[in-house]
Amino acid sequence: MSTPRYAYDVDTAVEAVADHRFAAAITDRWNVLGGRPNGSYVMGVCLQALTRVMPAPDPLVVSAFFLRPTLPGLAEVQTAIVRSGRRISTGEATLYQDGKETLRVSAAFSDLRAAGRTVLLGAPPVLPPPDEALDLMGGRVIPELTIAQRVEYRVAARPGWARGEPNGRPSQEFWLRFRDGREPDLLSLASLVDAAAPPVLELGETGSATIELTVHLRAHPAPGWLACRAATRFVIGGYHEEDFEIWDSTGALVAQSRQLALLP
Amino acid sequence: MSTPRYAYDVDTAVEAVADHRFAAAITDRWNVLGGRPNGSYVMGVCLQALTRVMPAPDPLVVSAFFLRPTLPGLAEVQTAIVRSGRRISTGEATLYQDGKETLRVSAAFSDLRAAGRTVLLGAPPVLPPPDEALDLMGGRVIPELTIAQRVEYRVAARPGWARGEPNGRPSQEFWLRFRDGREPDLLSLASLVDAAAPPVLELGETGSATIELTVHLRAHPAPGWLACRAATRFVIGGYHEEDFEIWDSTGALVAQSRQLALLP
Repeated sequence: MSTPRYAYDVDTAVEAVADHRFAAAITDRWNVLGGRPNGSYVMGVCLQALTRVMPAPDPLVVSAFFLRPTLPGLAEVQTAIVRSGRRISTGEATLYQDGKETLRVSAAFSDLRAAGRTVLLGAPPVLPPPDEALDLMGGRVIPELTIAQRVEYRVAARPGWARGEPNGRPSQEFWLRFRDGREPDLLSLASLVDAAAPPVLELGETGSATIELTVHLRAHPAPGWLACRAATRFVIGGYHEEDFEIWDSTGALVAQSRQLALLP
Repeated sequence: MSTPRYAYDVDTAVEAVADHRFAAAITDRWNVLGGRPNGSYVMGVCLQALTRVMPAPDPLVVSAFFLRPTLPGLAEVQTAIVRSGRRISTGEATLYQDGKETLRVSAAFSDLRAAGRTVLLGAPPVLPPPDEALDLMGGRVIPELTIAQRVEYRVAARPGWARGEPNGRPSQEFWLRFRDGREPDLLSLASLVDAAAPPVLELGETGSATIELTVHLRAHPAPGWLACRAATRFVIGGYHEEDFEIWDSTGALVAQSRQLALLP
């Protein structure tokens, strides 16, 4: 096995320490505001462990419940195969820190290269080419927000929240890629669906805590920039959903996600 | 405890047989085409068991992985509290038949009556009043489809698939209620998000098998008819998502769901 070259691969790597048990080191290189590791980065660590034990190659649908904050530092991931089927297999991974569960992930795996019917009734975001779009961070570095040093965002125009003028419309479209040149693959899409600023910033909120995140991985992405669409439609009693789509550079839908989150 | 009067309550009842273990009887009264119990009915049985052990009253977000078909007959549900938190608690329920897991459900519970911000950016379906809408079944009884004897559907116009002319647009809006007069409550919404004909029937498909179903329960519903909106946008390699919304008789969004399913 060659040494991983890219930050995402280094920081999600797991090492088998026993049957279905893996050691991991959660880094501070994917932190969001508040100084905590991004939840979908940590979910990626769990998926790396799962891919080592599952009998099928491709995560297809992933559901994660965020139980406690995961902090930078050592962690252990325990995996279990729940059901090994002919076409679809289901597994579970639980991440522990200091003996406490912080994240529980369930996932169905399959082989996405198997053929089947395709009907598309949606279209990718309409964005200027990445080279003509604005870098959302505009060269600024927010030391606490280390994930913005790993992931690059380009937008057609600066969003209202980024100008201190939330516009009341919690939806946004943008380009996204790893800054260090790592190309997207199926598994990393699961970490990218929650790697951008939440649309509720346009409602004047400062953030949001994910309770549960479900990701559908629909196709292996082509290399290149990813076009993303994120939106929240219903904030009710402080809880809100957030939907996210990722389209690859060929215009193919490659991932969809929905989460339920709680405003602070 | 009074004897349940309504089919849904009778058919989802569980009896504690040991610590965190419950006996249940899956009935044939919620069967879909193919003669198998509807998956979200069986999920309702698991939620009934979970409500008996969770420290918070309201299921908030539920994720179910369908591992094997659940058949009419005896079943056992094992529950576990994964994390008991101040505001949110997370639990798991697994349904066994003949010693095999058929369904695994994870759920976060909370108290939905706690206050918080509300912002709504969507509207309920526009439908004629239920009394002026068409009964989808039109008085017909399909013996195998027993769920249609439990749940009533009213539509503005007969869908293409019901006339043998699938229209290629996999989305539909309709009224829904329990036929026996049972009013909806928060938990039963989780069973109703997958209790209608799948929109992919408008693509000429004959059905679809749910792999994973996530339900967000957003508010306690008012009594009366429920207005529903179901849609599929992306069929890729045989897999497709299905989104479902339920709005109550006061026009409030009360549940959202998304599933990943596989065409036959």
